[in-house]
Amino acid sequence: MGKALRAHSSHSAGVSAIGPGREFDLIRGFLRGGAPLPAEVRVGPGDDCAVVGSLAISTDLSVEGVHFRRDWLRPREIGWRAAAAALSDLAAMGARPVGVLVSLSVPPADAGSFATALMLGAREAVEAVGGVLLGGDLTRSPAGVAVDVVVVGESERPVLRSGARPGDGLWVTGELGGAAAFVRARVQGGRPRRGARSRFARPEPRIAAGRWLAERGIATAMLDLSDGLAGDATHLAAASGVAIDLQLDDLPVHTAADPELALRGGEDYELCFTASDLHAETRSAFAADLGLRLTRVGTVRRGRGVWIERQGRRDAVGSAGFQHFKGG
Amino acid sequence: MGKALRAHSSHSAGVSAIGPGREFDLIRGFLRGGAPLPAEVRVGPGDDCAVVGSLAISTDLSVEGVHFRRDWLRPREIGWRAAAAALSDLAAMGARPVGVLVSLSVPPADAGSFATALMLGAREAVEAVGGVLLGGDLTRSPAGVAVDVVVVGESERPVLRSGARPGDGLWVTGELGGAAAFVRARVQGGRPRRGARSRFARPEPRIAAGRWLAERGIATAMLDLSDGLAGDATHLAAASGVAIDLQLDDLPVHTAADPELALRGGEDYELCFTASDLHAETRSAFAADLGLRLTRVGTVRRGRGVWIERQGRRDAVGSAGFQHFKGG
Repeated sequence: MGKALRAHSSHSAGVSAIGPGREFDLIRGFLRGGAPLPAEVRVGPGDDCAVVGSLAISTDLSVEGVHFRRDWLRPREIGWRAAAAALSDLAAMGARPVGVLVSLSVPPADAGSFATALMLGAREAVEAVGGVLLGGDLTRSPAGVAVDVVVVGESERPVLRSGARPGDGLWVTGELGGAAAFVRARVQGGRPRRGARSRFARPEPRIAAGRWLAERGIATAMLDLSDGLAGDATHLAAASGVAIDLQLDDLPVHTAADPELALRGGEDYELCFTASDLHAETRSAFAADLGLRLTRVGTVRRGRGVWIERQGRRDAVGSAGFQHFKGG
Repeated sequence: MGKALRAHSSHSAGVSAIGPGREFDLIRGFLRGGAPLPAEVRVGPGDDCAVVGSLAISTDLSVEGVHFRRDWLRPREIGWRAAAAALSDLAAMGARPVGVLVSLSVPPADAGSFATALMLGAREAVEAVGGVLLGGDLTRSPAGVAVDVVVVGESERPVLRSGARPGDGLWVTGELGGAAAFVRARVQGGRPRRGARSRFARPEPRIAAGRWLAERGIATAMLDLSDGLAGDATHLAAASGVAIDLQLDDLPVHTAADPELALRGGEDYELCFTASDLHAETRSAFAADLGLRLTRVGTVRRGRGVWIERQGRRDAVGSAGFQHFKGG
């Protein structure tokens, strides 16, 4: 999930978030009229992290019933997942994690073992990528659990969302749709397919991959896949002022998912980036170093919006024509 | 309110928080076994902010029904108050605000004007102390509003909680108990006395005062008063490994409050600090520069805990003997 003053929807509990129209109207309203940014603020609102000096900072608020459900996840997994989602914003900038601060709000009955297990899960997630626990807070909640994770990372050379140029390829790491496959199965009352649960319950923030791509100057623009490829490609296209054509048949679909879930399902926390040139040797080196595949899923061109190409037909990602595909 | 891995209670909605015993057990459990802090982390868990390099960072989660009530505050005031409480942690380190990131979770019906007004209030609070909006996030909530504010400040020379030494005086800025007087009146169904409402609804983070004291090397230890003087003095004493004697008759009591509220009422967001020597000329210069009074309220000595001195008698701050005073 990303921060920097943008709204996002959540698919994780099978419930739709606030409609994007109102959300984005609100955000535009909020951005209007703010004070100008001082020079020490290298990246302000609108990207995965804010960058002040050489530190990238992001915050991610997870709410019970929207971002997670207790009947789907163990407390330790809720903590891991909240921290991993926040750390994924550092991955999206190519930053190195320093640590996290965790704020937890729980009903009094959960202040003991539940809260401890949740915080332990969050600490495990940050320590797994070389960071430490920088601080935390525990407050009472009248009902339901809320957890906010602040991530702090070192980022001398942040990769922004705004650097994509016509002619670049659009690439993703790993496989898509696994987390959404778990959610769909649980919402429909079915049994998730093999491998889907861990994609949802224990996502791996792609820190090493993000740094690899950033340090070599390969990624011209990058973000993490929290809202789903269709939605996140739209964010990247808007930030860069370009159009993106997605090749639906080229998506790396998780074995538990299908192309529609790979395109629209959120919370895979893979990286999506643009690159002007990505030779076979570079892809091989990436795969050897990271143990993760890279797949080209689209092309950047002049224009606006995100378009889906499939069997010779091109539809706007949000168009009625494409919506029709949902039934197929 | 402070961050850095500590629990705090809240008095603002007239409801008691999770009992301190369990909270602190939890926190001790959480701190045990964490990875060692790298050199770039100058201040880790346990103070008002974490400090990474020269940046102080803290996060503060406010929950409807615990930290604020909509029937007590306008949306803009909720936003101001959440940001001011978080900014107060920067004041407590003597840091200069760079900016804030605001995460807001609201029910769908509040995604419009309510959320906009709340965020506007938060932005006003940070711009009032020279910072900017660095980012934000809006998500759906199943019920109730939660707002998390992350503060980022520049702090070359952070003032910690751990620097108090026997012989130091204990000082506070401004007047105490005003916010608690508002809460008490509202809980009891009465009309708050003049001046109490603004202390609760529009607290002023003591940024300028904190920097003044830090830059001159005056404060040996400092924190902000979020939990109330009795509770926060206990935090400071524990962090510094000292005892503190509070002189109850010396407290600067807000006109709407009484000594008990000044001692135990939370959320005044004044600063509390120790100083080895504070000449009359220094106090005059402070008053002239900041328009704020300084009051000596106690003395640091060898030992442990916080003690209340009144009419020749000394009671532990949490002792039954002192509790008796509550009825007085």
